[in-house]
Amino acid sequence: MKIAVVENVLKLNDELAQQNRQLLKDAGVFSIDLMGSPGCGKTSLIERTLQHLRRHMKIGILVGDLTTQRDAQRMAEYTDQIVQINTGKGCHLDANQVRQGLDQLDLKNIDCLIIENVGNLICPVGFDLGQDVKVGMFSIAEGDDKAAKHPYIVHESSLLLLNKMDLLPYVNFSIPNFLEDINQLNSNVELIDISVSNRYQMHRWFEWICKQTFGRSEQNNESPVMNWCG
Amino acid sequence: MKIAVVENVLKLNDELAQQNRQLLKDAGVFSIDLMGSPGCGKTSLIERTLQHLRRHMKIGILVGDLTTQRDAQRMAEYTDQIVQINTGKGCHLDANQVRQGLDQLDLKNIDCLIIENVGNLICPVGFDLGQDVKVGMFSIAEGDDKAAKHPYIVHESSLLLLNKMDLLPYVNFSIPNFLEDINQLNSNVELIDISVSNRYQMHRWFEWICKQTFGRSEQNNESPVMNWCG
Repeated sequence: MKIAVVENVLKLNDELAQQNRQLLKDAGVFSIDLMGSPGCGKTSLIERTLQHLRRHMKIGILVGDLTTQRDAQRMAEYTDQIVQINTGKGCHLDANQVRQGLDQLDLKNIDCLIIENVGNLICPVGFDLGQDVKVGMFSIAEGDDKAAKHPYIVHESSLLLLNKMDLLPYVNFSIPNFLEDINQLNSNVELIDISVSNRYQMHRWFEWICKQTFGRSEQNNESPVMNWCG
Repeated sequence: MKIAVVENVLKLNDELAQQNRQLLKDAGVFSIDLMGSPGCGKTSLIERTLQHLRRHMKIGILVGDLTTQRDAQRMAEYTDQIVQINTGKGCHLDANQVRQGLDQLDLKNIDCLIIENVGNLICPVGFDLGQDVKVGMFSIAEGDDKAAKHPYIVHESSLLLLNKMDLLPYVNFSIPNFLEDINQLNSNVELIDISVSNRYQMHRWFEWICKQTFGRSEQNNESPVMNWCG
């Protein structure tokens, strides 16, 4: 009985995720499910992305947290297209919550939707939200063993970000060990090491997001935004 | 149907947790459920605790991770009384897993059991394992908003640890803001700010763990260990 119910919950989630995917595709929105531990820098990354790219693309945000409106308040300075989803004691976003969030956005006026999942390296990985890609985020401060200890996020992500490179001189973190674990788990995944706080390599993230948003459907590398990003 | 099943799962967990609690009480073991984000420093804290206290008390360890034996291997240098529990895709330990772990330990030769939960600020909070106390761990690197955004761990913990104080000069973290959030959520909880890596205030954690382990049942503050710890 237990297994049947869990399967039904996941099946229902997958059906709703497919509806979300179609809705986003029809509106021409490229969508990212951004996953990572509490404090790895997801909100700061989105703030900086909005600051930098908002003049070049229309970005919408869904942001998940157990409670508080703090993240949405931080980002609302840069966009009106933002919805905070409070999950209560829920440890991840699900497709139904995302659907309710999408209903509050003007999708026709969004190029790229970033869904900031609840801070958690585990539970968000297993739930399809209808996104185009999942992006996993780690931080130097978490230690170099986190990819090996959380393999599912490495398997499922199209891109991994390693944030807080500015802290590298102050913590015990072996870049070669971290890369070796990732290579063993998913040799195809792209990795960008960044520092949101001191802007190290942020241009590579901006290029990636531009390429994903505009490069896929149009196959037009001559668009002004692509030139600007690249 | 869904709610009934979830309730049954939790009810079963609570029954097993009560059995664990009785088992630990009968063996005279004080037990801690240590919870915190991936990379907040739980394993390093336990390593340092074993190094420092193993000559003064008998410490047993249960350590939960999705996969890998890395944490247990790190700690096995200091104790034979250690069991790694791999949860697969499970985002928290449950009472049944702890029971299976307890069966592999020699409880009569343990004063204090530390259960390192899976790295996750959310899911472990709701599952009773049969522990005496829950200890919540945050890190300076995670940002000062994490208590407010994860209130349940603050509600449920008897002690909070704020680790990585050595990184305070390099990150944006307001101690007063963090303390204000905690005070609003649980004005009774004790907080110790520490740095495992440079040993800042580790004596206060050692004192706390000694007091909890030996001070409760015996009401004997003159014991050699208490004198040594205090």
